[in-house]
Amino acid sequence: MSTPCTPPTYEDVTQAAALLQGIAHRTPVLTSSTLNDCLGAQVFFKCENLQRIGAFKFRGGYNAVARLTPEQRRAGVVAFSSGNHAQAVALASRLLGVSATIVMPLDAPAAKKAATRGYGARVIEYDRLTQDREAIAREFVERDGLSLIPPFDHPHVMAGQGTAVKELIEEVGPLDELYVPLGGGGLLSGSLLSAAALAPQCRVFGVEPEAGNDGQQSFRSGQIVRIDPPASIADGALTQALGKLTFSVISTLAHDILTVKDATLVSALRFFAERMKIVVEPTGCLGAAAVFDQGQAVRGKRIGVVLSGGNIDLAALGGYLS
Amino acid sequence: MSTPCTPPTYEDVTQAAALLQGIAHRTPVLTSSTLNDCLGAQVFFKCENLQRIGAFKFRGGYNAVARLTPEQRRAGVVAFSSGNHAQAVALASRLLGVSATIVMPLDAPAAKKAATRGYGARVIEYDRLTQDREAIAREFVERDGLSLIPPFDHPHVMAGQGTAVKELIEEVGPLDELYVPLGGGGLLSGSLLSAAALAPQCRVFGVEPEAGNDGQQSFRSGQIVRIDPPASIADGALTQALGKLTFSVISTLAHDILTVKDATLVSALRFFAERMKIVVEPTGCLGAAAVFDQGQAVRGKRIGVVLSGGNIDLAALGGYLS
Repeated sequence: MSTPCTPPTYEDVTQAAALLQGIAHRTPVLTSSTLNDCLGAQVFFKCENLQRIGAFKFRGGYNAVARLTPEQRRAGVVAFSSGNHAQAVALASRLLGVSATIVMPLDAPAAKKAATRGYGARVIEYDRLTQDREAIAREFVERDGLSLIPPFDHPHVMAGQGTAVKELIEEVGPLDELYVPLGGGGLLSGSLLSAAALAPQCRVFGVEPEAGNDGQQSFRSGQIVRIDPPASIADGALTQALGKLTFSVISTLAHDILTVKDATLVSALRFFAERMKIVVEPTGCLGAAAVFDQGQAVRGKRIGVVLSGGNIDLAALGGYLS
Repeated sequence: MSTPCTPPTYEDVTQAAALLQGIAHRTPVLTSSTLNDCLGAQVFFKCENLQRIGAFKFRGGYNAVARLTPEQRRAGVVAFSSGNHAQAVALASRLLGVSATIVMPLDAPAAKKAATRGYGARVIEYDRLTQDREAIAREFVERDGLSLIPPFDHPHVMAGQGTAVKELIEEVGPLDELYVPLGGGGLLSGSLLSAAALAPQCRVFGVEPEAGNDGQQSFRSGQIVRIDPPASIADGALTQALGKLTFSVISTLAHDILTVKDATLVSALRFFAERMKIVVEPTGCLGAAAVFDQGQAVRGKRIGVVLSGGNIDLAALGGYLS
């Protein structure tokens, strides 16, 4: 594996922002007067659900492919993912003229496999029960010289994800608190770098599903804790452990890691559809759900929330709304 | 009735824009690369579903209340509406310190009555089968000196609605074609004034539900045609006839009036939720549905579409998505 092994700095985030200029959407920041009145706070939602491929993952995936050498680009890239990272790497590769191989489970939703192929990627299917996706990806790296684009534990991926909060703070000014969904930690670590540089007084919280609180355990114990595969509707935050690089940034810069119940995610998802007219997937609701849990504790504050994605299939969405 | 009887000009739109500055949201313009690739066109969606109260109606309602004299403001305003106009006038009045009376049918959804009362308005209920809402409103005007804020046929309402397309063209530049939902014509007439001033080569289309094509009949015959109450899921475009003022602008400046089937509205609503992660009510999908019907006819063009609103109850939305 050729993964660099030092975490990125804010310089890497600014470099990623320059590469993403005109390529990624500068996503809107939305507010709700009703919510602000209710909480007595000012809440700014950074809408990465409105990003290309429907999630922040495009930022990091694009930055990582763009930072490869010409020789690496010619050889192509490989990624393993059943979710948003697959589409992020596939689209980024197409835009950059790089061939992409995506390793996806046989039982991944047909729509996701079709979307990934639709971006021109080659999809390699594997059996989750009998095969190891990392071993399959490693074979492409070692045998064919492809560059692996990991889903979160990579400096260029982390730096790319940090550009969303960079845009948020540049647009709305300093924040008192910032709430960010936490899975493997790519988005949170990048967000921490941007917040530390642009709003050093801001307390930044990572938010996990209650059932998958490996990040909270790791943060509070000071070492990476691995948990059994958790069960939550936040299907983008079911990672079993933080990465080495993401943990090193998170353990240094985060204020705390919070958890929320699945029921609160559903309430938040319904709030966004009903009052704010946007579709946010359960994982994307993590930060918002934590703010709703805070209630009056946020009174008088300026709060940033990253809505990380909106990729949920229509039948599931319909079920939550009915 | 004290309704002025000449249509507004683009000067009125710019004056409305100044009054709405910092009060109405400057709503985002969203795009979809997937859609653009599919149509071979560039389509810009002006997201008035993300406006305050969830619809463009806030613009016109606020402008109309703001343009009253101090004496008129002290006396208060009255409006009749079961939909977005009720909430628009209620919120505008609260923001401007004006007392509002909203005449709503007894069988209006409880949520809409509650929302209107939530903005501090007095709600007067009437029986749609036995009472005439215009007569009730007229009584408030004649007996109590309230100013009527009509839903569309009023120069200040029309001018306010025109600010959305003013923002759109200022942001994205000239357009070849613009598609706008058409009910009573407030949004379309205001949009026509802005397009004529800022993008005079742009062909502007109003779009109605097929079952409620009074506007198309009126435009093509050169006189206002009144139809029976139509049946369509586009519940914000069930007006039976255009207004005198809106018709005078539409008949002069529109390129044509198109109609779409309800089934196409549902497809569009699902497209917006699935691919663009936004909630658009059926009426709000009218313009987009017409573009989808055009298919390859829009190839190579720069197309503007106004998504007029996102107010749909969650159960109904869930039903369309499942």
